[in-house]
Amino acid sequence: MNLHANSDIKAFFEPGAIAVVGSMREWGGLGYTAIKNMRQFNFTGRVYPVNPSYEEILGLRVYPDVGAVDDPIDLAIVITPKQTVPGIIDQCAHKGTKAAIIVSDGFAETGETGAGLQRQLVEISHRSGLRILGPNTIGTLNTENGLVTNPYFISYDKIHKGNIAYCSQSGIVGAQGQPLKDEAYPISKMCDLGNKCDVNEVDLLNYLSHDPQTSVIAMHIEDVKDGHKFIDTVRKVAARKPVLILKPGRTERGAKASASHTGSLAGSERIYDAAFRQAGAIRLNTWREFWEIPRVFVNQPLPQGNRIGIITFTGGVGVVSVDTAEECGLTIADFSPATVSRLSKLSLQLARNPVDLGPLIPVSDNPLPVLEETIAAVLDDSNVDCVAVTLYASSGAETPIYMDILGRLMKNVTKPVSFWIYGTDLAAMEELSRQVQERGLPAYFDIELTIKSLAVAADYSRVKSSLNSGLIDISPGAKQTQP
Amino acid sequence: MNLHANSDIKAFFEPGAIAVVGSMREWGGLGYTAIKNMRQFNFTGRVYPVNPSYEEILGLRVYPDVGAVDDPIDLAIVITPKQTVPGIIDQCAHKGTKAAIIVSDGFAETGETGAGLQRQLVEISHRSGLRILGPNTIGTLNTENGLVTNPYFISYDKIHKGNIAYCSQSGIVGAQGQPLKDEAYPISKMCDLGNKCDVNEVDLLNYLSHDPQTSVIAMHIEDVKDGHKFIDTVRKVAARKPVLILKPGRTERGAKASASHTGSLAGSERIYDAAFRQAGAIRLNTWREFWEIPRVFVNQPLPQGNRIGIITFTGGVGVVSVDTAEECGLTIADFSPATVSRLSKLSLQLARNPVDLGPLIPVSDNPLPVLEETIAAVLDDSNVDCVAVTLYASSGAETPIYMDILGRLMKNVTKPVSFWIYGTDLAAMEELSRQVQERGLPAYFDIELTIKSLAVAADYSRVKSSLNSGLIDISPGAKQTQP
Repeated sequence: MNLHANSDIKAFFEPGAIAVVGSMREWGGLGYTAIKNMRQFNFTGRVYPVNPSYEEILGLRVYPDVGAVDDPIDLAIVITPKQTVPGIIDQCAHKGTKAAIIVSDGFAETGETGAGLQRQLVEISHRSGLRILGPNTIGTLNTENGLVTNPYFISYDKIHKGNIAYCSQSGIVGAQGQPLKDEAYPISKMCDLGNKCDVNEVDLLNYLSHDPQTSVIAMHIEDVKDGHKFIDTVRKVAARKPVLILKPGRTERGAKASASHTGSLAGSERIYDAAFRQAGAIRLNTWREFWEIPRVFVNQPLPQGNRIGIITFTGGVGVVSVDTAEECGLTIADFSPATVSRLSKLSLQLARNPVDLGPLIPVSDNPLPVLEETIAAVLDDSNVDCVAVTLYASSGAETPIYMDILGRLMKNVTKPVSFWIYGTDLAAMEELSRQVQERGLPAYFDIELTIKSLAVAADYSRVKSSLNSGLIDISPGAKQTQP
Repeated sequence: MNLHANSDIKAFFEPGAIAVVGSMREWGGLGYTAIKNMRQFNFTGRVYPVNPSYEEILGLRVYPDVGAVDDPIDLAIVITPKQTVPGIIDQCAHKGTKAAIIVSDGFAETGETGAGLQRQLVEISHRSGLRILGPNTIGTLNTENGLVTNPYFISYDKIHKGNIAYCSQSGIVGAQGQPLKDEAYPISKMCDLGNKCDVNEVDLLNYLSHDPQTSVIAMHIEDVKDGHKFIDTVRKVAARKPVLILKPGRTERGAKASASHTGSLAGSERIYDAAFRQAGAIRLNTWREFWEIPRVFVNQPLPQGNRIGIITFTGGVGVVSVDTAEECGLTIADFSPATVSRLSKLSLQLARNPVDLGPLIPVSDNPLPVLEETIAAVLDDSNVDCVAVTLYASSGAETPIYMDILGRLMKNVTKPVSFWIYGTDLAAMEELSRQVQERGLPAYFDIELTIKSLAVAADYSRVKSSLNSGLIDISPGAKQTQP
């Protein structure tokens, strides 16, 4: 693998012309659905359906084989029975196609017969220079040009354009597996690596590292093909952009389950953990973290240290915040005398971290100016590197007032802020969350995620400056290990 | 504390007559709002407003003081400036009031002056037998009689009746701090212990232990007043009902933050952990777990062991499920030969745990009967103690079909099931979740919560049988410790 230029990866995300090889049966054929999906998301390139049994679908001429298309093909999407795939890939190679996404499954993940077929694909790729993503993948997605290679029904028509790249070794990280529209994840690219017979995490990282639309990379991987190369690559990429990794298969049984669905063998958890740390990647622990934590990097400066200021409406959650912060490696900031004096003017009780506005709010006629001055004071404190802010949603009437406050406060902010939203009305909470996120600010319903997002930002800030100064923390013994 | 009969605690939840002492200013007065809230939730008892400056509110006569009410008062709710509270409590005691909830704050949590006032309250309680909840509490809630003592605005009018009791040391666990209606938590009772000057977690556990509406107790506590008594009580209660505990203040700074908002000092994390384990309580780790995990106990049998069967639509999440299960103390069940043969009839790929329906679903014309037979086969396997099931929501059209399947399968089930819901349409996911939960079954959007809920059920099953056979695991050294 990696015999070819990294620039080839571009064809998987920015193809001018695509051939789709698969069933063109209306309503249900996977080739047909893939083309429907591309239409729905306004793909800007040219699309050529390929199937010997059809003449026209969706107003497009259908070609009997890839060779018959009278346009150079950048990307072929192959969704046919596994036995037919090597022949089709061979045709693509002859045609000079740059890249192929093989959606079909039944290859190395299912046993020796499938593994044999997969070896044929690798052989064609090595011989011809055709790059292959998959097999057993739903492929790629690019919000810049409306590319979505997914051949399954997607029940929505819009994905929020943004700068998070989500990469996975599972089809669940895709438009048919996530409420991408409803959750408004700000996405640049998505990619399912599948069985990784050719293109793997290293190729993808190299491409995303130079992708101007991507400023943070979230990766779900179950194994790494070449440990040394991976570490070198992450190290280079992490000096520019955060690389956040969710790596299941931590337990022995988990690793076994991983082998049975991707056809690859996961290495020991201890070795992976050391290697990730050595490379400057930041580990995430849950699916929720994988989707939500990257939001902290979307539109905010990095913190200059790990001292957190916490503004809460409830002492009980204040305690949870402090626990979580300390457990994630943050430090509870000691407010400067100037901040203590500024907060004391509002109320003596407020002049400590976490600032608990709880007792004040029910007895104040207009608590929102107090909230604004509190956030401003904590943001201004030079002893504070990042701030967690609570917003309470009840009727929804408070939302425009909150947004006014944020509009004034967040203009020239030099520190990251993360919001925790709670309240009594789920619809009001969701609307407030949406509006906060539309400003590029992270908002969560889980206090632990709010705090953790800032801890991850602080971690990455430290990693980035270490990598850029050439001084990365290397845990003892990690250097020799190879995943 | 605990000088009085536990039966006194009843007055906090099942009062016939309530006096509300506080501001009766329309729209905003806390006494007024408390009474409005009780109306809104259809409280079935009698309510007497008390305030010397008003004659009538909401069609009710207002009394100048508690003594003037010509009806025995079971429960007084006191929401007045802290200096006035001891005098009012004294009047309540003279009147023979059984119980008082002191919402007012500014007591032991704020320093020596407040602590002095709090000591006066304790003195009156000891002298008269009047039981006090608080101060610094939002009080109690009972879905059986519509009692809600909360004096803050609540933007909804209905709380789902059920059998989870939520107890807390923070006002956030209440109707003004949670979307209780929208999330349809099946609630029996709620209680905020506040500063715990008299009534504490032991009293509450004793009451809830015998409450027929409560079958699972979720407690958020930051400290324990009497460690030995607490352990003895939890041990007795846990032999009947699960006691789930979220205990923040785990870190040194967290414990310090706790002291500053409840006026009590948290003990060492290590000691608490040992004590909880010794007592048979089960620890939860996050706010989300505190709210969501109890649902697994609502309407289901306990598992007879810790062997989990997992049904997934995606191999990637299958691996995450296995990791989470193993890390929570569950074991991945080895299917019996009968199950392997039954699943093999559907597809050879399905005959392993986790069962991954993913590759089958897109190529099957009607995958739902396959899902039904798969769930049935796994539920029937005598090597399986509990089952995690994935449901995928896209258009919402699948919801009635899922509900039909569950209706057929869940009739005579002897094992707990927990659902993970994912999909492309948030509204469809939420509707499916609501319908699954209306059947008393737990449904989550986080796969980790789905698995963890079953792990907690298995933990409790083991604890319960140990406690009932007199053989509880006691970790070495834990017996001598005292929180």
